[in-house]
Amino acid sequence: MKITVLRLGHRYGRDERITTHCGLVARAFWADEFILSGDKDTGVLESLKKVVERWGGLFEVNYEKNWKKVLRDFNGIKVHLTMYGLQINKKINEIKKHKKDFLVVIGGEKVPAEVYSLVDYNIAVGNQPHSEVAALSVFLDRFFEGEELSRKFEDAKIRIVPKKNGKETV
Amino acid sequence: MKITVLRLGHRYGRDERITTHCGLVARAFWADEFILSGDKDTGVLESLKKVVERWGGLFEVNYEKNWKKVLRDFNGIKVHLTMYGLQINKKINEIKKHKKDFLVVIGGEKVPAEVYSLVDYNIAVGNQPHSEVAALSVFLDRFFEGEELSRKFEDAKIRIVPKKNGKETV
Repeated sequence: MKITVLRLGHRYGRDERITTHCGLVARAFWADEFILSGDKDTGVLESLKKVVERWGGLFEVNYEKNWKKVLRDFNGIKVHLTMYGLQINKKINEIKKHKKDFLVVIGGEKVPAEVYSLVDYNIAVGNQPHSEVAALSVFLDRFFEGEELSRKFEDAKIRIVPKKNGKETV
Repeated sequence: MKITVLRLGHRYGRDERITTHCGLVARAFWADEFILSGDKDTGVLESLKKVVERWGGLFEVNYEKNWKKVLRDFNGIKVHLTMYGLQINKKINEIKKHKKDFLVVIGGEKVPAEVYSLVDYNIAVGNQPHSEVAALSVFLDRFFEGEELSRKFEDAKIRIVPKKNGKETV
């Protein structure tokens, strides 16, 4: 099973840090690929690739201008995270039952109406305004039931030794 | 029980959106108060207050320059979220057992070393680089076991009707 995260509508400058956090969350919470759409921000793409190089794992980082093609061509279950969707508390068990690849779609402030009908699920991580970074992390944490946080990353140049107090890396 | 989120080291311009997302997550995931420290960014404080006014709830938004005082004076359990800490998977049950108020501390890129020793717990939501927005949301989601997402917000002027497809608000 492969999990791909598609970030829609990225804008230069304004979204740089939020999109980078989305990409880092995708990697840290066990997704396999991050696809950026919207502005082709090489700064964001490069900084994500550098994290993979340093911290390990087989995470892929890609850009695709044509997000409709990604959505249409995807063979598997498509989940759009939106505050307008059905509650994750009620739908997560059903979603987890699919033994297929997953495409998790996260938008910014203006998501084209078409997205809602091109996916299999519109899911709300709470029906309150907050953050696509939070929605993605909680969705993946629920999906993997917390196991994603104990995972080892292959070929890491740096690794943290969990500590009660202070910082230690090897 | 009251939950306060303390955001350390906010910087004008650079952190505006990430800090706003942290504040929105604090509110949406059932914290009672958000304290901003670092630069006194009235834009961030006002935009959070506007969300409370529109979307309801009793969430407080405050600024405090002296974060050490907040940490020292706090009467309850202090949890610092950091990628260098002990794993949430191993510590969350112990943390939940305390019947006290909680202060959840989130930093930016440079957290003063002192913070680590001024708190009761240094907790990692995964020992990988990602996002304070994600760390805060997953911590609160685990703490409240998902119940925070079904909560009703008092005096809301706007409310979303969860839908399978499309957007509906009342």
